[in-house]
Amino acid sequence: MPLHTVKSYEEELGLLDNKIARMGGIAEHNLGQAFDALQRRDPRQAEMVIVADNAIDALEKDIEEQVIEMIARRQPLADDLRHVMAALRITSDLERIGDLAKNIAKRAGAIAEVSHPKPVILGLERMVELALKQLKTVLDAYAERDADRAIQVWRDDQQIDAMYNSLFRELLTYMMEDPRNIGLSTHLLFGAKNLERVGDHTTNIAETVHYLVRGEPIRDDRPKADNTSSMLVETHD
Amino acid sequence: MPLHTVKSYEEELGLLDNKIARMGGIAEHNLGQAFDALQRRDPRQAEMVIVADNAIDALEKDIEEQVIEMIARRQPLADDLRHVMAALRITSDLERIGDLAKNIAKRAGAIAEVSHPKPVILGLERMVELALKQLKTVLDAYAERDADRAIQVWRDDQQIDAMYNSLFRELLTYMMEDPRNIGLSTHLLFGAKNLERVGDHTTNIAETVHYLVRGEPIRDDRPKADNTSSMLVETHD
Repeated sequence: MPLHTVKSYEEELGLLDNKIARMGGIAEHNLGQAFDALQRRDPRQAEMVIVADNAIDALEKDIEEQVIEMIARRQPLADDLRHVMAALRITSDLERIGDLAKNIAKRAGAIAEVSHPKPVILGLERMVELALKQLKTVLDAYAERDADRAIQVWRDDQQIDAMYNSLFRELLTYMMEDPRNIGLSTHLLFGAKNLERVGDHTTNIAETVHYLVRGEPIRDDRPKADNTSSMLVETHD
Repeated sequence: MPLHTVKSYEEELGLLDNKIARMGGIAEHNLGQAFDALQRRDPRQAEMVIVADNAIDALEKDIEEQVIEMIARRQPLADDLRHVMAALRITSDLERIGDLAKNIAKRAGAIAEVSHPKPVILGLERMVELALKQLKTVLDAYAERDADRAIQVWRDDQQIDAMYNSLFRELLTYMMEDPRNIGLSTHLLFGAKNLERVGDHTTNIAETVHYLVRGEPIRDDRPKADNTSSMLVETHD
């Protein structure tokens, strides 16, 4: 059995973090590109995002294999074990974010021929900008082991939820105004829901970073401002 | 360090499987109850499902702690390691299924005052029945280490996807017929999407069971028949 030489183990953890940073970078990029494809109505760009998701899946597999190999060979304890488990957890959230970006790209492809209502696209644009900023910040918080920034990301998710609530209402109103808007609006509604879920996964990563650094979960109940599941928009005259 | 006595380790694995079986049982129960609350328009029952989800979250935490403790103390290798990693993965999918059931319950609460269109509820009922059957079968496949049944579950997910596609079209048509249906239909649309995602998590579990038993992933591309993301229902006259 190989010796647990500190330097070499640190190198392996460094390699793991490096892979996570790359995975996060691609997820960020794909999410931005997916929205760009939707906004510019460019099915070719949408197709590129769908293909690029393979790189995220491959990195997930790679990281998982490294983690299992490290646990089996190094048999890490305490902090080291917490580190590799955190890596595994963050990887799983990033893979889901990649899937959500891919789903937005598919929808972008489907509605590329239809012109969009400006205010709704502006609303989606603000949502995607905040989702990207949150994702970037939480990846930095992981790289720098910064629990305070993780808490900040966790708190700010409420803003994404609030934007989703408002877009949800807007899109339903738009559908009601004219049934011909329903096909398009449904895609935009699922797109907005995808962004809200990107925010949730980013929040999960923030919780993981906090636990990794401080060894305890974030106190307080998680702020959850998406209440559309229990909201019935009044549709009766 | 305690000796790796075979019997005691087997007991720990048995305890782990027992917790997964319980978690799966509650997830199944909650999903069925959530749909029942929706169908019977019973906000009280919906509320009970939402509260019952706490038991699933508590079991997830419990299983995670046991897995980490087992890895740290037992330092399992090869098959044993694969077993605890599979447990961790299945737990994560069951937790997500619990969340999806809870979300259906929230929507049931929101639309409890509104009467539903019969054909759509029948469509949802068939979908929930199949989703429950698949979930039950995959949990049995895990308990019995039955890779063939896991493959069957994996294949049959296409049927859930096909039902979702058909419901998706039906609900959009229903919205177009009368804008007053839009609020209700949006909830039913997200509810159907939740069931389609329950199917995806069940398929993930099937993949985990197969890998656990056979030591290799299921060959073939995964059958994926939900194409609503790239489908634009014709809404122009």
